Amino acid sequence: MQEKHLINQTIQKQVRHRTIREFKDEPIPKELLDQLLEVARRTATSTCMQSSSIIRITDKELKKEIADVCTQEYVARVPELLIFIVDQRRNYQILKEKDGNLDNISGMDHFFASFTDACLMAQNVVNAAESLDLGTVYLGSILNDPVIMCGLLKLPKLTFPVLGLAIGYPNQEPQIKPKMEMKYRVFENSYEIFDNYLEELKDYDEEMQTYYDLRDTNRRVDCFSDQVVTRYSTAALKRQEMLNVIRNQGFDLKVKNN
Amino acid sequence: MQEKHLINQTIQKQVRHRTIREFKDEPIPKELLDQLLEVARRTATSTCMQSSSIIRITDKELKKEIADVCTQEYVARVPELLIFIVDQRRNYQILKEKDGNLDNISGMDHFFASFTDACLMAQNVVNAAESLDLGTVYLGSILNDPVIMCGLLKLPKLTFPVLGLAIGYPNQEPQIKPKMEMKYRVFENSYEIFDNYLEELKDYDEEMQTYYDLRDTNRRVDCFSDQVVTRYSTAALKRQEMLNVIRNQGFDLKVKNN
Repeated sequence: MQEKHLINQTIQKQVRHRTIREFKDEPIPKELLDQLLEVARRTATSTCMQSSSIIRITDKELKKEIADVCTQEYVARVPELLIFIVDQRRNYQILKEKDGNLDNISGMDHFFASFTDACLMAQNVVNAAESLDLGTVYLGSILNDPVIMCGLLKLPKLTFPVLGLAIGYPNQEPQIKPKMEMKYRVFENSYEIFDNYLEELKDYDEEMQTYYDLRDTNRRVDCFSDQVVTRYSTAALKRQEMLNVIRNQGFDLKVKNN
Repeated sequence: MQEKHLINQTIQKQVRHRTIREFKDEPIPKELLDQLLEVARRTATSTCMQSSSIIRITDKELKKEIADVCTQEYVARVPELLIFIVDQRRNYQILKEKDGNLDNISGMDHFFASFTDACLMAQNVVNAAESLDLGTVYLGSILNDPVIMCGLLKLPKLTFPVLGLAIGYPNQEPQIKPKMEMKYRVFENSYEIFDNYLEELKDYDEEMQTYYDLRDTNRRVDCFSDQVVTRYSTAALKRQEMLNVIRNQGFDLKVKNN
């Protein structure tokens, strides 16, 4: 899509989204951070239960330990680090105080509603941050070791980490990363499987190969389909077994025998 | 936060977010829809795997059936209905074509990465839509019956519905829904449980009680803590047991015995 056809500034920023991993050594002014948190507060939330929360990491040693879980050293240096979490604990406390029914709150329906809420809140904050010319990077890698993450954040029962988000003033100018055409990702009325993805994605594969990833100074990246092969070639055991940690955090998986 | 302190239009729209459930009988112009899908395409995605997709519902009968799952009759009448899904299927096909390792793609690590991606994409589309003065409503209710939803959308193995989103030109002017203060939802370095939520949330409870929900013409809603009691009083069995459907869709839960 030609940028000249884009109507407004919000969308212009959205289509120019890039991940920023190197930030200026400069904190986000409190006034701006307050705005980001107000945006988080105003995010849509399932049945208004507001069952997601944010842990703001200001302790340097803790940030370093989280960077170790992420196996991304730059995380220790990010100006602002927010961890979005599933939070059914607050409502559990309210139920206790009101003598409400405590049997259902540990259900996976509520877990997934909270998980969704946490993600929506994170993306809303990202859009607000980018509108203020701040840069962001999502850290899915906080879940590399869910047990350790729960421990680091002292997460009680009925809470669980979802996604990390680092924010700051950009200190790099990465290219926009190529993405596949939406005809492979948007289907009408029912799911559609294409006959030959390698043929279909040929141009995209080529485009991706000429994209330079600034993480490793000007290293050319693999074509997309080779990235897929690499990505799924190994097993991330602690991530694969995440549901056991979710159960340990007090959620009732209700998994029936095979 | 006073709106006058807000810096830009993006954030102004974000903090004025309201759910719109009644739309004008007017389609979204194709040019605008294309912009929304371009925003979806440009959304951050875990390790660039782009493993989420969108089913666009244009079939009226299908829309009606989805409305039945949602038990929300207005869903049958929304101008635009998008269902965001977990989609590991496309990458599975690519792995097959490339003789890649097929052992890991069914892992819950990839399920949760896709689930997160789908949510981020949905919120990015919401922000774009609202910047264009369109109204939106999320439909978590598509998961009221995950088996039926998978069937309606003809979802193959390694896909799963996450969230519905209806979009259109607003035909109502609801108030902004009160939300609790962020001091109860943002914590520094570790999770924080308050001693007495009913006391803490007293003002918020009062504010919520004076909010009128336009869904039921000018009916006053319960205070927040009473909403919590009502919300968790009953069990949504099909939603609670969602993990079994996720397993049926081909994902390996890797749940160990208790």
